Amino acid sequence: MAEFSIIRQYFQSLTSRSLASQSLASQSPTSPASADVGIGDDCAVSTVPQDMQLVSCVDTLVAGRHFPLDTSAHAIGWKSMAVNLSDLAAMGATAHSILLALSLPKIEDAWLAEFSRGVADCCKSYNVQLIGGDTTQSPTLTISITALGWIKTGQAILRGGAQVGDHIVVSGEIGSAAYALRHPNSALQSTLDYPQPQLALGQSLVGFASSMIDISDGLAQDLGHILSASQVGAEIQLEQIPIANELAQLSIDQRFADVLAGGDDYQLCFTISPDHFQRWQAQCAQSSVTPVTVIGQIQQDMTCHYFYQKQKFTPEKSGYQHFA
Amino acid sequence: MAEFSIIRQYFQSLTSRSLASQSLASQSPTSPASADVGIGDDCAVSTVPQDMQLVSCVDTLVAGRHFPLDTSAHAIGWKSMAVNLSDLAAMGATAHSILLALSLPKIEDAWLAEFSRGVADCCKSYNVQLIGGDTTQSPTLTISITALGWIKTGQAILRGGAQVGDHIVVSGEIGSAAYALRHPNSALQSTLDYPQPQLALGQSLVGFASSMIDISDGLAQDLGHILSASQVGAEIQLEQIPIANELAQLSIDQRFADVLAGGDDYQLCFTISPDHFQRWQAQCAQSSVTPVTVIGQIQQDMTCHYFYQKQKFTPEKSGYQHFA
Repeated sequence: MAEFSIIRQYFQSLTSRSLASQSLASQSPTSPASADVGIGDDCAVSTVPQDMQLVSCVDTLVAGRHFPLDTSAHAIGWKSMAVNLSDLAAMGATAHSILLALSLPKIEDAWLAEFSRGVADCCKSYNVQLIGGDTTQSPTLTISITALGWIKTGQAILRGGAQVGDHIVVSGEIGSAAYALRHPNSALQSTLDYPQPQLALGQSLVGFASSMIDISDGLAQDLGHILSASQVGAEIQLEQIPIANELAQLSIDQRFADVLAGGDDYQLCFTISPDHFQRWQAQCAQSSVTPVTVIGQIQQDMTCHYFYQKQKFTPEKSGYQHFA
Repeated sequence: MAEFSIIRQYFQSLTSRSLASQSLASQSPTSPASADVGIGDDCAVSTVPQDMQLVSCVDTLVAGRHFPLDTSAHAIGWKSMAVNLSDLAAMGATAHSILLALSLPKIEDAWLAEFSRGVADCCKSYNVQLIGGDTTQSPTLTISITALGWIKTGQAILRGGAQVGDHIVVSGEIGSAAYALRHPNSALQSTLDYPQPQLALGQSLVGFASSMIDISDGLAQDLGHILSASQVGAEIQLEQIPIANELAQLSIDQRFADVLAGGDDYQLCFTISPDHFQRWQAQCAQSSVTPVTVIGQIQQDMTCHYFYQKQKFTPEKSGYQHFA
């Protein structure tokens, strides 16, 4: 089967503008349509809203490495989208669109139908369009997604802005996906298979948070990126980190291995001055963004100290390594 | 080795803004730098020039499928870039930046150094920045690149604008890469390993060409996309298609198999009214864009007829199939 047939059959409905409407819209050679172009041309064409900057990122999922081989095609589709939208969320950006590069061993209609349904469900949940793609044959199922979004010029929340005295805050519960990976079909399975990118929360923090990252490789490692980019340190009170009931049953070491080094959380970790935090809470009191919890403070000393019930705690593992 | 170390070691120099300058630039939490952000944060942030639309595309190269396994790492780096910039060229866009998703079996310093040098050489040749990336471990070497560029609003050259009576025009010589693939280390090897995306030519055709595509899957198939998107047909005079001397030595059938179905040319195929073509030639007479040649005409009848020395010719193969 040719690439175009695959794209047309499974993904064309996710794009806003079809081949047919393109050919109609560009009747005059010197005045082609100024409307946006989705799948079906050499490139997509998108109109960037005024006073906005483009925010872009790419993340790849490899079968057997970023998800177990028996993961459902629907979950693979959803998760491939979600991990990229999570990066946009970590900038405070509004998601606009994605480009999908799909390498797969063979054409299996049932798999492709389920995979594209997972992509579509995530697109719909977060109001994102599929604007381009490429399908290739490869021995290894590999999904590489580029996410594009907008941020008001100059307002992106970077990793390097944390200030001494800032609160360190996380959204949701941490460590659930790592637990689910070790306990297949537990009640926490959906946190592993269907992460929820925190786009609304990220956007609400623009103008308030001093730095932000999404937790993909484990809280300790990802917080470490904020600390080194900001040239500051941190004190973390481990008992303040919100966890699911399942994790509370674990030994202290296993619990905080999942929490600090597990990864795949796709929650946000951000820093914010106590004053900004109060003002943000007042503004967002009525909104439905994911709950957040203060778990520590930024300090001058450029290391990260962990405390559990006032005792110093030394984590065993350091987070997900992309090359084992 | 961790992903960040790989990115920092090999690719950070290709981005305009380093981690260090980011942390300096975003001292104040409520007024982060409005400057662009490259590698080192969750996403890149790019300022889109006024009155421009964003043009984006993604293409994946799989080892052993899109390039022979013994291809040099430098050539793989160059070609991965070039095939994507070629898609931007086919819209008439100006290239701005790329995001690189690299999946590789293991960390080989020598390979990575050569690969990143190939990427860097192509970046420099076409004034493109690497603004983001992701490296993952995978059994199969896979390179997926997203290219981003700008086009004046409403001016993108789409596939669907060809009009009856338009010239059909190609740039450069066609079929050389297909010949090189069958004759390793021939004089045409560089056309296969180091394709030259026709960005300057593409941009010069904005406001003149009625439709355009880059030739990646073979002239017949790619021209076919213009014809079906434009709902027109074509007559092609095969002897007018420029070819290298090596191809002139081949049998007619083999020659036109390479020319029509070979692919990997990364030349442009466009349609343009005779009047616009004259005006474009007058304007571009002094410029150094790649030479172009009229090879046929758009016609009403929705099929594509090939003629060789006035005799009807039926091609044997139909171009590169992404799934064999």
